[in-house]
Parts: sequence; C-alpha cells; structure tokens
Amino acid sequence: MTEVAAFAELAERLADAARPITLAHFRAGVAYDVKADTSPVTVADREAETVMRQMIGAAFPAHGILGEEHGAEHLDASYVWVLDPIDGTKSFVTGKPLFGTLIALLRDGRPIIGVIDMPALNERWVGVEGRPTLFGGRQVRVRACDDLGHAWLYATSPQMFGASDAVAFERLRSSCYAAVWGADLYAYGLLASGRVDLVCEGSLQPYDYCALVPVIEGAGGIITDWQGAPLGLASDGRALAAGDAMLHAVARNVLAGA
Amino acid sequence: MTEVAAFAELAERLADAARPITLAHFRAGVAYDVKADTSPVTVADREAETVMRQMIGAAFPAHGILGEEHGAEHLDASYVWVLDPIDGTKSFVTGKPLFGTLIALLRDGRPIIGVIDMPALNERWVGVEGRPTLFGGRQVRVRACDDLGHAWLYATSPQMFGASDAVAFERLRSSCYAAVWGADLYAYGLLASGRVDLVCEGSLQPYDYCALVPVIEGAGGIITDWQGAPLGLASDGRALAAGDAMLHAVARNVLAGA
Repeated sequence: MTEVAAFAELAERLADAARPITLAHFRAGVAYDVKADTSPVTVADREAETVMRQMIGAAFPAHGILGEEHGAEHLDASYVWVLDPIDGTKSFVTGKPLFGTLIALLRDGRPIIGVIDMPALNERWVGVEGRPTLFGGRQVRVRACDDLGHAWLYATSPQMFGASDAVAFERLRSSCYAAVWGADLYAYGLLASGRVDLVCEGSLQPYDYCALVPVIEGAGGIITDWQGAPLGLASDGRALAAGDAMLHAVARNVLAGA
Repeated sequence: MTEVAAFAELAERLADAARPITLAHFRAGVAYDVKADTSPVTVADREAETVMRQMIGAAFPAHGILGEEHGAEHLDASYVWVLDPIDGTKSFVTGKPLFGTLIALLRDGRPIIGVIDMPALNERWVGVEGRPTLFGGRQVRVRACDDLGHAWLYATSPQMFGASDAVAFERLRSSCYAAVWGADLYAYGLLASGRVDLVCEGSLQPYDYCALVPVIEGAGGIITDWQGAPLGLASDGRALAAGDAMLHAVARNVLAGA
C-alpha cells in the first residue's frame, strides 16, 4: 500500500468510527451548548472528534491535527488532518439528516484527501489526489454548465455573508436559474456528483472547506476562494465551487462586480 | 371502518402509489420544464399526480380535486383532495432527498387529513382530525418553547418573501436563536415531531400548506396564516406554524411589527 493509500484508508476508518457516535445522538434529544460564536455544539461533536484524534495519533503520531472542537496540534507538521465531526450542527440538532463528518488531510498546506460522510443518509464521497472521486464506491463526475442563467446554485444560509458579501452574493444568486438553501457539506457532494452547478458560501472555517477540495477536484470540478486562489488553512472563509471551470470564472466576475 | 378512516386509508395508499414514481426519477437525470411562474416541474410530478387522481376518482368519484400540476375539478364538492406530488421540486431536481408528497383532504373547506410523505428518506407523517399525529406509525408531539430567544426557526428560502414580508420575516428571524433553511415540507414534519419551534413561510399555494394542518394540529401544534386565521383554499399563502401556542402569538406580533 502506498503512503497516500494508507492515509486514505485511515480517513475512511475515521468516518466509520464517527458514524455510530453521531447517529447515537441524532434525534435522541441531545442537548446543545452555545459556543462563543453563538453556534451550537453537542456531546456528539466532541466525542466523535476525540475518537478520530485518538485514531490519528495511534496511526501517525507525527501528523498534525486541526479540529473544530478540540483545537490544533502540530500544525507545523508536513501532514495535517483537518476534522469537522459534525458539519451542519443546526441540521443535526433539529433532526434534519443533512449533517455529516468532514475529514481532510493536508500535505504541506494543500488538501490531498477529503471525505464527506453523511451518517443519517448512509452516503459518502471520497476524494484522493490523483484519483477519481468516489460516491458509495462508484466514480462521480461534475456536469458541464457554462451559463449562469441555467445554473443551479446552493448555499447554506443568507446569514453566512457579511454586509458587502451579501450584496455580491445576491448579484450572483439573481443571475442563476435557481438557488437552493440549507445543505451545508452535502451541497458540495451534490456538485461533485453533477447535480448542482455552483456552491457559493462565506464565513467558513478550514474544517468546513478543506475536505471539499479533493472531492470536487477529483470529480473534475473547481473550488477556490472568491478570487480564484486555492483553499488552505489561511484562506479567508469564502468558497466558490463549480462543476464547470468556465462557470467558475463567470461567477467570480459577478461576485467581484466586474 | 368509519368514513374518515376510509379516507385516511386512501390518503396513505395515494402516498404509497406516488413513491415508486418519484423515486424512479430521483437522481435518474430527469429533465425539468420551467413553468409560467419560473418554477421547475418534471415528468415525475405529472405522473404521480395523474395516478393519485385516478385512484381518488375510482374510490370517491364525487370528491373534488385540486392538484399542483393538473388543476381543479369539483371544488364545490363537500370533500376536496389537495395534492402536491412533489413538494421541494428544486431539491428533487438536484438530488437532495428533502422532497416529498403532500396529500390533504378538506371537508367543507377545512383540512381534516394530511400526509407528509418523504420517499427518499422512507419517512411519513399522517395527521387525521381527532387523532394523534403519527410518524412511522408512532405518535409524535410538538415541544414547548415560549421564548423566541431559544426558538429554532425553519424557512425554505429568503426568496419566498415579497419585499415587505421580507422585512417582517427578518424581524422574526433575528429574534430567534437560530434559523435553518431549505427544508420545504420536511420543516413542518420536524415541528410536529418536536424538533423545531417555528416555521414561517410565504408565497405558498394551497397544495403546499393544506396537508400540514392536520399533521401539526394532531401533534398539539398550531398553524395559521400570519394573522392567526385558519388556513384554507382562499388563504394568502403566508403560513406560520409553532409547537407552542404562546410562541405562535409572540411570533405573530413580531411579524406584525407590534
């Protein structure tokens, strides 16, 4: 097994381990705490991340880890795992099955492995640098669409944009055929599977977007910040994903007001 | 079997019949047409409604029918079925499993039976006047929450509100603990199951909201227009649902700017 294959195998084992923990608390009346940024967090988030961190530490103790709930360690390592045990916590807390686990591995700052795992839907996308993205073990591919007027746009919430970003987003949204809201990580999976043309979001953290990069790139798509720069730990939290590189360029121009 | 029990049995058979039709077209590359109101419609919508109308006509030929895709007949009848073969067509077309079938029966203009059926999730809520609402055959119940600051609010899209309604909605949203977007009919099921406190929407049609009334009322909740009037065929398309009647009154006041 190559090194990357061993890392990818661990990434899927992390998702396997997180699933029963999140599912045990889903619709089970789990209480939530309100974090400093006012977002909710549950014991399921914390437990799932703890288990994943233990597994990484046991397998690759030299690797760094950045997790939403338990912070950063060894971010100067060549390999850094970036974990969001529950992306879509607001869906999770309200019984909506569109929550999931995001697992990324970065090499020298660049995401090379990404997993989007949907426990309640029993669905998973896996992206590994240099390989086609798999959904339930089968290759998926983005679709072509270079015309905003025919494009389907996803975003999680209008509240994820600051004032000036909201104006830019609204320019983009009103140029698209349709906007669909509220899917969190799932939107990017649908884009990788060729069912959605654009996802445009803001206020994201590295654990929200790092795992998306290998999934979307391995399906033939493109995901960058709003200026077209690659996403990494130091990005500004704005993400723009497209199935079609031409559409990505058009959308960037609309966001920029060009 | 009482008359209402026979109607309820038919309502579930309609949902059973619609399921394989919608699922056969889900994620199967189904094309969509753009209707006069710019919303999408697919062959799955049309086929599912056709089959349900045939079944109603065979069982109760004197009943009226109002469907999203094939229009109205005998709306002057004492009993009128109101059908939305696919609510959440934008989710359906993009491969997101939060679409479903809405089936209502009105007696003298008042919804007495409602079914929220989620084919891709294999979930169903059934509400029948005078009986507790069932989810997967088990009774569900709304939860108490009389404080907007702790309330979880759902709505499908900010684009469903006209300009002045958007201002009123934003007053309400910013008073709640959290807003979650993009669930269509599913939001009302989650409210009936005690997982969400408020749903506030606009631009709805009778086939979007009639089925919700028995489901929510049978779970102990309340759903009306934004002024507190009962929902019926002639309502204005604004709906406000709450698990707690106190919260409903508070939310009405906020929407009214009082």
